[in-house]
Amino acid sequence: MPLGQRTAGDKSESRYCGVETDFNEDMPRLLDFNFSAGFDFLLTPLMNPTYRPSLVATGSEAAVLPFAGSDLVLSPAQWSSHVVGKISSWIDLDSEDEVLRQDSETVLRQEIAWASHLSLQACLLPSPRGTSCGNYARCVNQILQGLNNMQLWLRVPLEKSDDDAMDGNSDQAIGGYTDTWQWWNSFRLLCEHHSQLSIALDVMSSLPSGNSLGRWFGEPVRAAIIHTNAFLTNARGYPCLSKRHQKLIAGFFNHSIQVIVVSGNEVHNTSMGTLECSNHTNENSDDTSRHPLRSYLDYVGYLYQRMDPLPEQERFELGYRDFLQSPLQPLMDNLEAQTYETFEKDTVKYSQYQRAVCKALMDRVPDEKASSITTVLMVVGAGRGPLVRASLQAAEETGRKLKVYAVEKNPNAVVTLHSLVKLEGWENVVTIVSCDMRSWNAPEKADILVSELLGSFGDNELSPECLDGAQRFLKEDGISIPSSYTSYIQPVTASKLYNDVKSHKDLLHFETAYVVKLHSVAKLSPSQPVFTFTHPDHSTKKSNQRYTKLRFEIPRDTGSAMVHGFAGYFDATLYKDVHLGIEPSTATPNMFSWFAIFFPLRTPVCLQPGSPLEVHFWRCCGSTKVWYEWCVTSPYPSPIHNCNGRSYWVGL
Amino acid sequence: MPLGQRTAGDKSESRYCGVETDFNEDMPRLLDFNFSAGFDFLLTPLMNPTYRPSLVATGSEAAVLPFAGSDLVLSPAQWSSHVVGKISSWIDLDSEDEVLRQDSETVLRQEIAWASHLSLQACLLPSPRGTSCGNYARCVNQILQGLNNMQLWLRVPLEKSDDDAMDGNSDQAIGGYTDTWQWWNSFRLLCEHHSQLSIALDVMSSLPSGNSLGRWFGEPVRAAIIHTNAFLTNARGYPCLSKRHQKLIAGFFNHSIQVIVVSGNEVHNTSMGTLECSNHTNENSDDTSRHPLRSYLDYVGYLYQRMDPLPEQERFELGYRDFLQSPLQPLMDNLEAQTYETFEKDTVKYSQYQRAVCKALMDRVPDEKASSITTVLMVVGAGRGPLVRASLQAAEETGRKLKVYAVEKNPNAVVTLHSLVKLEGWENVVTIVSCDMRSWNAPEKADILVSELLGSFGDNELSPECLDGAQRFLKEDGISIPSSYTSYIQPVTASKLYNDVKSHKDLLHFETAYVVKLHSVAKLSPSQPVFTFTHPDHSTKKSNQRYTKLRFEIPRDTGSAMVHGFAGYFDATLYKDVHLGIEPSTATPNMFSWFAIFFPLRTPVCLQPGSPLEVHFWRCCGSTKVWYEWCVTSPYPSPIHNCNGRSYWVGL
Repeated sequence: MPLGQRTAGDKSESRYCGVETDFNEDMPRLLDFNFSAGFDFLLTPLMNPTYRPSLVATGSEAAVLPFAGSDLVLSPAQWSSHVVGKISSWIDLDSEDEVLRQDSETVLRQEIAWASHLSLQACLLPSPRGTSCGNYARCVNQILQGLNNMQLWLRVPLEKSDDDAMDGNSDQAIGGYTDTWQWWNSFRLLCEHHSQLSIALDVMSSLPSGNSLGRWFGEPVRAAIIHTNAFLTNARGYPCLSKRHQKLIAGFFNHSIQVIVVSGNEVHNTSMGTLECSNHTNENSDDTSRHPLRSYLDYVGYLYQRMDPLPEQERFELGYRDFLQSPLQPLMDNLEAQTYETFEKDTVKYSQYQRAVCKALMDRVPDEKASSITTVLMVVGAGRGPLVRASLQAAEETGRKLKVYAVEKNPNAVVTLHSLVKLEGWENVVTIVSCDMRSWNAPEKADILVSELLGSFGDNELSPECLDGAQRFLKEDGISIPSSYTSYIQPVTASKLYNDVKSHKDLLHFETAYVVKLHSVAKLSPSQPVFTFTHPDHSTKKSNQRYTKLRFEIPRDTGSAMVHGFAGYFDATLYKDVHLGIEPSTATPNMFSWFAIFFPLRTPVCLQPGSPLEVHFWRCCGSTKVWYEWCVTSPYPSPIHNCNGRSYWVGL
Repeated sequence: MPLGQRTAGDKSESRYCGVETDFNEDMPRLLDFNFSAGFDFLLTPLMNPTYRPSLVATGSEAAVLPFAGSDLVLSPAQWSSHVVGKISSWIDLDSEDEVLRQDSETVLRQEIAWASHLSLQACLLPSPRGTSCGNYARCVNQILQGLNNMQLWLRVPLEKSDDDAMDGNSDQAIGGYTDTWQWWNSFRLLCEHHSQLSIALDVMSSLPSGNSLGRWFGEPVRAAIIHTNAFLTNARGYPCLSKRHQKLIAGFFNHSIQVIVVSGNEVHNTSMGTLECSNHTNENSDDTSRHPLRSYLDYVGYLYQRMDPLPEQERFELGYRDFLQSPLQPLMDNLEAQTYETFEKDTVKYSQYQRAVCKALMDRVPDEKASSITTVLMVVGAGRGPLVRASLQAAEETGRKLKVYAVEKNPNAVVTLHSLVKLEGWENVVTIVSCDMRSWNAPEKADILVSELLGSFGDNELSPECLDGAQRFLKEDGISIPSSYTSYIQPVTASKLYNDVKSHKDLLHFETAYVVKLHSVAKLSPSQPVFTFTHPDHSTKKSNQRYTKLRFEIPRDTGSAMVHGFAGYFDATLYKDVHLGIEPSTATPNMFSWFAIFFPLRTPVCLQPGSPLEVHFWRCCGSTKVWYEWCVTSPYPSPIHNCNGRSYWVGL
């Protein structure tokens, strides 16, 4: 039974809540007992935990493996929807004891083969014991190569005090705690970021710092196992969670991470739950029908239901989350009607433009000359006319006289533009020019040049080159709107994006920047400015080539983290204090025209606490194209990406 | 004029000695002057070092670039054979000064374009200024993509005291000196190991430790520039070199590294050499015709000529140096006559076998029973008979009676075997069995089983599986020759091998082990044992699967180093104290049947001083094949290579 409906929530996996149980041979009863309490699925061992292959007498090869019932005890749909297999937790593939090691490998293979046979959606692998998990990873990696669609969830405790850490390696410790993220990181590097290898986090009573927790939202976490001893008891004796725990659970819900409740050892003696079920007697029906973890489930359901509904824009963008798109090439290609249609709906953007034009008009023409001076405004890249409209509204708002040239290179958009002018009766004010701004011979010079040529990374749709071409017909003291723009980047953990890029198995996709609605991404450090362009630019030896070297410091309490690439943004000054942008700390609210951009790294860079990340970005210009190159030089050098624009470029 | 002939030396590039000169507009005269002194080529600037593009007035685009003469002043053959271009040493592409940075990039591109136009074989790039060489590397990397066959030699000082280091980064310092290998390493990583990017080492008066020097022999060093101030003065006033310098130069000669002499600043005021040439006057013909660096050249020539001649075996193997071969699959495939022919010539190997059989026969049959007991000896994998011959000779030598079964699966070899037996008159002693030893039904049991199934890595040609099959017909107390064998690995710098593997541009070649005569390889740490097999093995639950975790410590005075992969060897105990092997510290002398094996790493691992290398090797067995998997877990985890034998395996 799902946790409920968020008032206007997403239909994600996190609606379902599971429960971890002990081994039980009576699967149907185990399922019934937990279902009737409201749980949606079981995390349960598939094989008797006392079984050891090496103890089985040789010659007894006909013996049946001690699985929990045959595949017939549940229907195929029940197995696959309601059971997550829990691999025997005694296994230790990196033990010094060779017999234990071999038993572990045998059982791991048998259990996963059985789970595959049952078409389970996932199996939970026991925690690696420190980062020295070479043989465990080798075995899992071999299994992953031939696996059906099943996911393998590696169990990782969110925090582990150094006392019980296997190896007191100081590199892995933050403030007395082992950084268990390192366990995950070693394992997944050995398994080469396999897309079916994901994470189940163990949530205990204490939590690491917010920065440390934040990393996990860029990693493939599928489930969070919450121990009963992570709960507090409220005034009425019911379980509840600390504010920090509540925030974390909300984060899980927002990232489609399923919650699984498990009885811990300390608080509330609930560990007898499944035993009570198997020893089911009807002596006291009230007591036995009440599931010992029911109140925990109720509390998780309560947290789910009280989540804020998703804002409309977020709901609209749900389908775009973490979905990689190639950036537009609006200069080389003509946009389609659908694209114009979408972008024209961004009222926030055009009201910012209108504000900017208002201020420019008033600066240009004093009130006393408002009726005598006509300002010449050129919209370069007019599309289907939204900036023409915004400019005319600004003229009306300020009482200034305006003459507009609407320059557009796309002949299809020009058709619409003509009908718009006719429809609105702008014939005397607006002149339509069907021409590329870089080659147009303007009949007069402009006071104001208005354009919307910015991409997610500012200059990446060649606004600088276009406006350089248009600058010829701007008066010496004329105004460009936008007057400047700056690109920004920040390092991110983005395992989903990385795996999507990697799935293409070629260099080209690793050297391409993508437009993407970032969601399952951990932002590791505040963004920093990369390239700035200012218009008009009257300097003589001007160049649109750029080179910037940046140094990012990751907060120490983050622990180690993986950088899969860089999230890119822009901020533009339209005119004076009127800006527009998507850089997270200054983003214009409720604007939807731009998602972020993502520059991947061919080999993700692992950052140790306190070691800075040094990054280089170049904007290179050739005779027919513009492209970016990027690389990392610290903590260790990466190859230079996209040399000579071999993989990704924007055509002039 | 080449340095001379080594008595029986190789014809490598190192026969030619160059000289570094200042910029000189009269190239023909410069060439003549240095040629007549005996130098073979010039390292000389191509462009006037005072030229700065930013100082040229705009509009003067018709101006001629200030190159050293037109391409016509020398013949094409002279340009390409006798001139190495020296890129202007003032360039600094990572300067904070943007004008200098842009001038540097412009000049670098102009000079390399000119050198390409002249078809020079190489250009010398000035030293990077520390590891922060991002923009320099980006520019060189762009140039490399479109370059003709020209090599770019990055100039790297062998040692640099910290006083004049640009950045006092302690990571890069060893004992008060900056580890300039890091400069090279950053540069080549950024340029993605480009095969046309190589090294010219600057040799000064002080030298780093032997371990530190040793690293360079695994890197693509093409030239060594020896400064006159690296020389000492002998009793007669002539230049000479310290013993350590002499050893280093000998190492250069052995690795086809060309020596270039350059006048340093301190010792002997010889820096006027080229100026004297250009201000050539005949006032004192003796003085001017004597080249100021002539005595240095003579000394280098002397060092070359007194090199030890190459031993015959080395000369024979010259053509195999650093040439990757796929290992044989003698079980799946049949060997060809040529292969048998080559291996049979290895007299050292067979005399070791004969010694082993002798000792086994004497242990088996006491002297007093020599005439009464006939020992049954089976050669499994008899090929064309060399082990049959060695065994019979052992019988003769010890006076023991022998009955030999020669088991061979290759029907073509059996033909030869029959004619050998007839020719030698062994019909009464030798029984030929044309059969796979794993399926043969032997008519009696053997006292001694002799085989030569070992590959470069010991078990890699499936000796364990074959001998397991043959063990059925060995007596309970019978002897196997070999009685055991162990594989070994050691981490190596091997940039040539890495680039050859990389040139295939696929995963398969990075996950394959190669047989190779290692030469341009730096061995970073002593080898360690990997897998051991013992025969016969009567244990019940025996398995030929193996797993070993190794930890290598690189000597601290090595500095940082790149591990491109692992060199593999074997050592076999034939019987008691008779062994046979190629593990460097215990290798059997003058044996040529086995080269080493090389396991590459997909991404080379950079080791910092004092940080250990943790390596895992697995031998995995399936129903139709045997394969290795390998990975690194420290300093950071690599992917597990060759998962499930997807790239490289040996067929059963």
